[in-house]
Amino acid sequence: MPQFEIPEQQWAQVVEKKGGPVVFKQIPVQKPGPDEVLINVKYSGVCHTDLHAMKGDWPLATKMPLVGGHEGAGVVVAKGELVTEVEVGDHAGIKWLNGSCLACSFCMQADEPLCPHALLSGYTVDGSFQQYAIAKAAHVAKIPKGCDLETTAPVLCAGITVYKGLKESGVRPGQCVAIVGAGGGLGSMAIQYANAMGLHAIAIDGGEEKGKNCRELGAQAYVDFTTTKDLVADVKAATPDGLGPHAVILLAVSEKPFHQAVDYVRSHQDGRPQQIAGSLRLDGGGQDCRQICRRYQQIEEETGYMLRGGGVVFFIFFFPDETTNLS
Amino acid sequence: MPQFEIPEQQWAQVVEKKGGPVVFKQIPVQKPGPDEVLINVKYSGVCHTDLHAMKGDWPLATKMPLVGGHEGAGVVVAKGELVTEVEVGDHAGIKWLNGSCLACSFCMQADEPLCPHALLSGYTVDGSFQQYAIAKAAHVAKIPKGCDLETTAPVLCAGITVYKGLKESGVRPGQCVAIVGAGGGLGSMAIQYANAMGLHAIAIDGGEEKGKNCRELGAQAYVDFTTTKDLVADVKAATPDGLGPHAVILLAVSEKPFHQAVDYVRSHQDGRPQQIAGSLRLDGGGQDCRQICRRYQQIEEETGYMLRGGGVVFFIFFFPDETTNLS
Amino acid sequence: MPQFEIPEQQWAQVVEKKGGPVVFKQIPVQKPGPDEVLINVKYSGVCHTDLHAMKGDWPLATKMPLVGGHEGAGVVVAKGELVTEVEVGDHAGIKWLNGSCLACSFCMQADEPLCPHALLSGYTVDGSFQQYAIAKAAHVAKIPKGCDLETTAPVLCAGITVYKGLKESGVRPGQCVAIVGAGGGLGSMAIQYANAMGLHAIAIDGGEEKGKNCRELGAQAYVDFTTTKDLVADVKAATPDGLGPHAVILLAVSEKPFHQAVDYVRSHQDGRPQQIAGSLRLDGGGQDCRQICRRYQQIEEETGYMLRGGGVVFFIFFFPDETTNLS
Amino acid sequence: MPQFEIPEQQWAQVVEKKGGPVVFKQIPVQKPGPDEVLINVKYSGVCHTDLHAMKGDWPLATKMPLVGGHEGAGVVVAKGELVTEVEVGDHAGIKWLNGSCLACSFCMQADEPLCPHALLSGYTVDGSFQQYAIAKAAHVAKIPKGCDLETTAPVLCAGITVYKGLKESGVRPGQCVAIVGAGGGLGSMAIQYANAMGLHAIAIDGGEEKGKNCRELGAQAYVDFTTTKDLVADVKAATPDGLGPHAVILLAVSEKPFHQAVDYVRSHQDGRPQQIAGSLRLDGGGQDCRQICRRYQQIEEETGYMLRGGGVVFFIFFFPDETTNLS
Repeated sequence: MPQFEIPEQQWAQVVEKKGGPVVFKQIPVQKPGPDEVLINVKYSGVCHTDLHAMKGDWPLATKMPLVGGHEGAGVVVAKGELVTEVEVGDHAGIKWLNGSCLACSFCMQADEPLCPHALLSGYTVDGSFQQYAIAKAAHVAKIPKGCDLETTAPVLCAGITVYKGLKESGVRPGQCVAIVGAGGGLGSMAIQYANAMGLHAIAIDGGEEKGKNCRELGAQAYVDFTTTKDLVADVKAATPDGLGPHAVILLAVSEKPFHQAVDYVRSHQDGRPQQIAGSLRLDGGGQDCRQICRRYQQIEEETGYMLRGGGVVFFIFFFPDETTNLS
Repeated sequence: MPQFEIPEQQWAQVVEKKGGPVVFKQIPVQKPGPDEVLINVKYSGVCHTDLHAMKGDWPLATKMPLVGGHEGAGVVVAKGELVTEVEVGDHAGIKWLNGSCLACSFCMQADEPLCPHALLSGYTVDGSFQQYAIAKAAHVAKIPKGCDLETTAPVLCAGITVYKGLKESGVRPGQCVAIVGAGGGLGSMAIQYANAMGLHAIAIDGGEEKGKNCRELGAQAYVDFTTTKDLVADVKAATPDGLGPHAVILLAVSEKPFHQAVDYVRSHQDGRPQQIAGSLRLDGGGQDCRQICRRYQQIEEETGYMLRGGGVVFFIFFFPDETTNLS
Repeated sequence: MPQFEIPEQQWAQVVEKKGGPVVFKQIPVQKPGPDEVLINVKYSGVCHTDLHAMKGDWPLATKMPLVGGHEGAGVVVAKGELVTEVEVGDHAGIKWLNGSCLACSFCMQADEPLCPHALLSGYTVDGSFQQYAIAKAAHVAKIPKGCDLETTAPVLCAGITVYKGLKESGVRPGQCVAIVGAGGGLGSMAIQYANAMGLHAIAIDGGEEKGKNCRELGAQAYVDFTTTKDLVADVKAATPDGLGPHAVILLAVSEKPFHQAVDYVRSHQDGRPQQIAGSLRLDGGGQDCRQICRRYQQIEEETGYMLRGGGVVFFIFFFPDETTNLS
Repeated sequence: MPQFEIPEQQWAQVVEKKGGPVVFKQIPVQKPGPDEVLINVKYSGVCHTDLHAMKGDWPLATKMPLVGGHEGAGVVVAKGELVTEVEVGDHAGIKWLNGSCLACSFCMQADEPLCPHALLSGYTVDGSFQQYAIAKAAHVAKIPKGCDLETTAPVLCAGITVYKGLKESGVRPGQCVAIVGAGGGLGSMAIQYANAMGLHAIAIDGGEEKGKNCRELGAQAYVDFTTTKDLVADVKAATPDGLGPHAVILLAVSEKPFHQAVDYVRSHQDGRPQQIAGSLRLDGGGQDCRQICRRYQQIEEETGYMLRGGGVVFFIFFFPDETTNLS
C-alpha cells in the first residue's frame, strides 16, 4: 500500500458567512472517522449549486463556515479502520451525496439519496474546494486508474445526473428519448450516454449552433424550439412510428417544456407509466435523480417554479460546469 | 352446447340525438361478426359516464343513435367463427373497452386501453342498455358461473377501475395505501380489494358516517378531511413508520386532494417513483387505469381541472353506481 | 392501395409424408380468412427445425402434407375483412409463431408463444416454402420498406431468437453478457445485437478463426473452449470486476456449457435472479424465448439433453441458417 | 435513554473444537465496535444449521471456538459511536446475516447476502447462544416493542426465509403458490404468510395429520404425496384454471420435488420466468433467499444433492426449529 505524507494545513476556498465571499485560506486537514476516507482532491468541478449554497438560496440550511464543491476527483490518502472496499492509493470521487445512514428504510432498498440523515458535500459537510476532503467510504465514487481525473470531475455531478435519469427512465435500447436542453452541459453528456446505451436521442434546444453540436455528439434528430411551429408535433414526428419518445430527460429551467413533454411523450411502456425523468442538480449522488423530487417540494415556493404533469416530472437547475484545478 | 332462441327485435334504451332524451324502444338484434360474441344482458350498472355520453360532454364524439351502458353482465348466446376462448352459454361481461385491434404496439404489450382503434361500449359502439349486446370475444370479461350476475355488473367498471389502480400502483402486501374518497362507490370497493390483497388501507373522506362505513369494510385508519387540522400530517401518522403511504388511490372530484397526495405519499419504493395512481372512470377496461391519463389531456381544458404533481397523478370523475335490471 | 394479381396455383416444397422427401410441385393458393393476410414470399431462410419437421423428430405432430418454412419475407397481397394494422402492399414476414388465440391468459399478458392454441408456421400450418403463404395479421412481422427482404429473412427466426434472449435477460447497457456458441449463425447475430445495445459481449466458442470473427463483429473478449485451462475462470476474468457476466446467452448443443454457465454467471442483479437465457429454435416468435422452456420439457427425453441449473436455463438447437430464394 | 448494567462475564454455549461438544461456560462480554450494537439476548431459536456448524459439515470454515445461534431476540444495551438508527433500549434480533461491507456491488444494489465480506452469526462470528451478542447495527432486525420476543425468535430465520421466498417469487394477490413441505416448521409459516398476502396456498406434504394442520392454517388445497397417483396433475388441478401454481416454495430435503415442481409450475408470468423459489436455511438474512444459490454450489458435492430445473430452483435443508430460553 502506498504511503502519503499528509500535511497539517491545507489551502481551501471557504465561505465564512451566508452570502459569501469565498475566502482562499489555510485550514487544518481533517482526519477520517472509522468509516471514512480522506481524499487528496486533484480536480474539482464547479456547479451553480455552489453559488446557491454560498448565497443561502435554498430552504435547507448549509454548514457554516463552509467549503463548497461536490465534483471532486482525487486520490485516497487515508482511511478509517472499518473501511474494506477502498484502499489508500485508489482514485475516488467526492459526490453530492457524501454519506447516508445505510440503515433506514430508504438506504435498505438502495434509495440512499432519500436518507433523512444524508450528508451533502459542499453543503451540510465540507466538500471538494479544498486539498483534502472527507467522505464516507461506502459512498465515494470509485474511479478506475485508467480514467483521467480532470475529465472525470464533472461526471461526478453532471454526468451521473443524466446517466441516472436515462437509466431510471426505463427506456430500452432501440427506443427513443427526448433530451430537452440537449445543447447544454448536462444535455451534451446525455446525448453521449444515450448513444452508448443504444438509444435514439431527439435533441431539443434553441439555435443552429446547438443543433450542429447535438448532431455531432450523436443526436438522431434536432428540434429547434426557437423556430418550430409546433414543437409537440415535431418531436413526435422525429420518432419512427410517430407516437412520441419513450422517455424524456428534462434539463430546462422554465416551466413550458414540462407541459410540452406531457403532450409528446408516448403513453405507458412496458407496464410502466410514461417516463418524464428530469434531473435536479441537487442530486448527483450516483443514485436515482427522481428521488430528489421530494426535496424539491421545499424549494418550490421560493423559486416560483412549478411541477406539473401526468407523468413523472422533475426539475433541474441547469448551468454549465466549469472545471478548476485545485491540486 | 346450449341453444338459445334469439329474437329479431329487442328492447333498448336509445339516445337518438346529442343531449337526449333516452328513448325506450324496440330495435333489431345484431349478429356477431367473426371475432365477436352476442351477449344476452341480464343486468347492467349505470355510470355517470353514460350521462356524459348522452349529453355529449366530452371532446371524443359518440356514436349516434347510441345505446349506452358498459357494466353489462349476461350470457353468451352466439359467437363468430373465429371465437375459441368463449363458448355459447358462458357468462360474460360487457366492459368499457369493447374491443381493440390486438395488433398495434400498445396491444402487443398488453396495453390495449391505449389502442388508437379501441371500441368503447356505450360510447363508440352500442353498449349494455339493450337485451342483446355485441362485444369482441377477446375483450369480454369471463364471469365464473358461481358469481351472481347482479352483483358482478358494477364490478365491470367500478370494481376493475380500483382493482387495477391497486395492482398497478406496485404496492405490496404489508404496505399502506391511502384511498381518497374511500366512502363512495369506488372507494368502498377499493377498501375491500386492499384488504383482500394484504394491504393496510388508510381511508380518507368526510363525515362520521363514512368513517364508520370505511372501518366496517376493513380500513385500518380513517382521516376525516372535514375535521382534520392537518390532513397531510394525519395521513402520514396513520402509517407505522410515519413516512406516509406507499401508494395513493385518488377517487376525488376536486383538485386539492391531488396536491395533498403529493405531500403525503412516501418517496420512491422498490426502485419505482412514488405512486399516486388515480383512476378515471373513462377507463374500466380491466386494464391499467393510469394509461387513461393521455386521454384525459383532451378533456382537461374543458373541465378546468388540472393535473399536477411530482409523481404519477391521475384524475377521476367519481359518481355512485346504480344497478338496474334490464333483462 | 396497390392491386396484386394472385394466381390460382403456385409452386411449393411439399412434405407429403413423415420422413419426406420434399416434393417441388404446384398446389393451390389459399385465401386469407377474416383475420389473416396472404403474403407473396420473396425469400425464405431454411432452419434445421424444417428438417426435424420433415422427419417427425419431435413429439408434437406436424400437419401433413406440410409446406415447411418459418423465415419468410415478402409482400402482403391480400387480407381479410378484420385486418386493420396491415395493408396490402406492406412488407411482412412469416415467423415461427403464425398465430395465437389472443384471448387466453397467456396471450392477455403478452406471452403469446405460450398460447395453447398457437399456430406454428411450417409445422402445424403451412409455412414459407411456397410462393403465397398465410399468417394471422396480428402476428406477422412488419418489415419497413427500407429493409432488404433477403437479409431480413433469417432475422425472422435466428435474429429474433437471440434478440429476445438479450432483451429478456434483463442485462443493461454497460453490463456484460456471455454468448456461448458466439461464432455460429445465431451467435454472430447475438454479438451484433449486444453491441448495438451497449453491452459488452464475451464470446465463447472454439478455434482461432471463430475468435477472429467474433472480435471483428464486436466481441470485447473471446474465450476458446478448446484451449482454455479453466473456462469458468477465464470468463469471469473477462469482466471488469471479475464477478462474471450479468447474463448468458446459451447457443450450444451440448450439456456441458449449461453447467459452466451456472458456475460463471454473476449472482442476482437488479433484484432478479441470475439470468442464463438460452434460446430454443422452436421459438423465433418475436416473443420471449424463455417461454419455450415448457415445450422443451416434452422433447427432453427423446433428445437425451438435460436441463439443469440454479438459474434460468434453456436449450437451443443450433444450426447455421441458409437463405434460399423462393420467389 | 435507558441505562443497562453490562457485566464483565456472561454464560454462553461454546463449541471449542470442530465436532463439539458444546460447553456451557462463562466467557467475557464483548464491546461493540463503532458500527455495532450489543444485544442482551432474551430468547434464541435453535436451527439445524447450528448442528452443521458444530460438526463442521460444510466447506465454509467456522470461527473456532464458536458461539452458535442466529435466531436471537433481545434488547440493545450498548452501541457504537456511528450508530444512528438503533437506540439503546430498542428490541432487536440477531439474524444469520450479522453484517456486510455495505459498499460492494452487491451491497449497493440491496443484495447484501451476496456480499463477499458477509459476517454470519453463529458461524463466522459469535451468535445468539450467549447472553450478550454483537451485530452490525445496519443489519440487526428491528423488533417492534409490541412483539413478543419468544415467538419472534424463530421468525428471524425460519420466518424471513419463507417470507422472502414468497416476496421474491413475484406471485401477486389472487394468484396461487405451491408450498412443498407445507406441514413442517417453515411450511407452516409459509402458509400463514401466503394467507396474509392474499395468495391461494396449495399445501404439499405427506399424511392426513399434516393435511389437517395445513388446512387449519389456511391452505386452500392439500396434496398428499404419499397417496396421490399423479402429484403433478393433482397440483395443477388445485388451481382454478388448471394451469398450475404461479410460484413454488420448495422446502423439501430430497431431489424429487424439484423435478416435480418444474413439471407443474405455470409458465412465465408477468414477463418473468416461472418461479420456483426454494430457500436454503443458510440464508435467513432478511434478504433474498434465492441469492444463496451461489453459495450452495460449494456445498453441493459434499451433500450429494443436485440442483436442476428449467426455472429458478433452490434448495433447503429443512429441520424443525426449537426455541430455547437463554436469558
